[in-house]
Amino acid sequence: MRSIVIQALDTGLTAALQARIDGKTKPPGSLGRLENLALQIGLIQNTLTPRLVKPHVLVCAGDHGAARAGVSAYPQDVTWQMVENFLAGGAAINVLARQAGMALTVVDAGVNHDFGARPGLIDAKVARGTANYLEGPAMTAAQRDAALAHGGRIVRGLAEGGCNVLGFGEMGIGNTAAASLITHCLTGVPLATCVGRGTGLDDAGLERKRALLAQALTRFNGSHDDALAVLAQFGGFEIAMLAGAMLAAAERRMLLLIDGFIVTAALLVAAKVSPAIIDYCVFAHRSDEAGHALQLDHLDAQPLLQFSLRLGEGTGAALAYPLVAAAVAFLDGMASFESAGVSNKA
Amino acid sequence: MRSIVIQALDTGLTAALQARIDGKTKPPGSLGRLENLALQIGLIQNTLTPRLVKPHVLVCAGDHGAARAGVSAYPQDVTWQMVENFLAGGAAINVLARQAGMALTVVDAGVNHDFGARPGLIDAKVARGTANYLEGPAMTAAQRDAALAHGGRIVRGLAEGGCNVLGFGEMGIGNTAAASLITHCLTGVPLATCVGRGTGLDDAGLERKRALLAQALTRFNGSHDDALAVLAQFGGFEIAMLAGAMLAAAERRMLLLIDGFIVTAALLVAAKVSPAIIDYCVFAHRSDEAGHALQLDHLDAQPLLQFSLRLGEGTGAALAYPLVAAAVAFLDGMASFESAGVSNKA
Repeated sequence: MRSIVIQALDTGLTAALQARIDGKTKPPGSLGRLENLALQIGLIQNTLTPRLVKPHVLVCAGDHGAARAGVSAYPQDVTWQMVENFLAGGAAINVLARQAGMALTVVDAGVNHDFGARPGLIDAKVARGTANYLEGPAMTAAQRDAALAHGGRIVRGLAEGGCNVLGFGEMGIGNTAAASLITHCLTGVPLATCVGRGTGLDDAGLERKRALLAQALTRFNGSHDDALAVLAQFGGFEIAMLAGAMLAAAERRMLLLIDGFIVTAALLVAAKVSPAIIDYCVFAHRSDEAGHALQLDHLDAQPLLQFSLRLGEGTGAALAYPLVAAAVAFLDGMASFESAGVSNKA
Repeated sequence: MRSIVIQALDTGLTAALQARIDGKTKPPGSLGRLENLALQIGLIQNTLTPRLVKPHVLVCAGDHGAARAGVSAYPQDVTWQMVENFLAGGAAINVLARQAGMALTVVDAGVNHDFGARPGLIDAKVARGTANYLEGPAMTAAQRDAALAHGGRIVRGLAEGGCNVLGFGEMGIGNTAAASLITHCLTGVPLATCVGRGTGLDDAGLERKRALLAQALTRFNGSHDDALAVLAQFGGFEIAMLAGAMLAAAERRMLLLIDGFIVTAALLVAAKVSPAIIDYCVFAHRSDEAGHALQLDHLDAQPLLQFSLRLGEGTGAALAYPLVAAAVAFLDGMASFESAGVSNKA
């Protein structure tokens, strides 16, 4: 894996940014979380006049060998069918990204399907799905590193095109199972509480998923602290590619919009590699998938929305983007007490 | 006051709307609150294909006779100065409405200032501020009815222009005090807990505000159930005009975006006049002004955002609008399992 250098935020501009925020025609603090966002984005961009440029959603798709063992309510074919849906513009993320004014980049990180060369699809397929972690590691170290590197390359391309704000999304039947295993290993939260219903398992399905994942866990002999070993053991390719993409995005001082449970699992991996990445993240929402709240607590993250979403695809990131854009807009567009001739607090 | 007829929602389309929502390419329920919003808006417009047309924020401004008694951290002149700021485009609501793609209508409902004829300002001035409720009623019954009627006329004009979604905002130094008194009377929550820091009172200021409002309350001999009597007693003109505007908006089957504490006080009045109005409301956010959570609990309302806003002006309504627009967009734009050829749940 290419060496990544993520700089801790330089807080030298904090006082000047706060003064600019407080000088706007409003009682101090009255724009609440918008003010926190404006400060964070100013520090990330190291300027009093931050801008959000070419906002993008990056959706990585991959298949999971364990999907056929019964960890999902949907058949594995839904992964490639949904990629086709993304390419046709009919999925939720298409609609919500368009609505938010965000471009969408879809990546085949390892789908069990041959798409051929397709406009709008980046072919970064590592393999046709991961191996089944009930039998052995989901991927080799070389496959993992390839996925991480692919993610980084894609993001550097976006950065070179001017993009400085990136939402992350995913598609992969079975990937809440992989995310549960990763979350357990990297946070220490008991596995059973990290496992949720995913796309909609019933009680019996949930119990079966828990039992299968407990079994998968016994096959891992590595250290739970070794995030890259955990990633290779449980996959998937889309999660690895997202982790690589996130690291590259923070290295390029982009703003990262973190979506739901699977994307946050990728972030847990990335944050083990380079903890400073967290300063570059905005947590879009708290999903209804059970493990997401545990991840957010572990990261001490305050998500912007609690909308009972549990779809993935980056939908939460796209939905939250206008809130982030509003923060930059008020900092840019509002008058100050002085410029507007408004009397300040006595 | 003109007789208002707000129809209870016809729920005849509920099953068909829900089927349309469930047919979209996503696990059932996985878009969470967006699905609830889509259903509500479909029922309001009584169609499977709702549209949001010409979204507007209506900001009503007024002055309060009690402001000079020390219920606010800011001088009364800030009301007209902020109206000037609205007209110049430099206030938070200008930026956030623009960002959300909403038009802004500013109304002088009763500011203590002569603006003259000004482009962008609707002159609906009832008087140059209310009377001081520490001494007697804030307004006469005739003034109250004039304010309600003005609000209705403005909204009917917007409706005739095609607008079907309306955010409500306000400006008026001292108006959290009026809203506290109204909220106490119409919800039965103890007055002291309805009183908050407004634009930023310190502890001593808050105690003073509580004492003054307790004194004001003793001057009211009417029934706390008589919302129109409560409104006249404590004002202000902007609150009355908003109540009239809301009633007319629901009568025209618009979607109402409810902002913070003062706007919700106006809604409490409107809901006493016509309880069916609540079905037409989306509650944009939960403000940090202490009484707002109490109002929302009273109305059993689930706000979309908890962003620690406490600015007013309709800023929360504008900030939440893209979330509402996203709900209509997914219903309109997403493919169905059938149309996209995606396998549904086994």
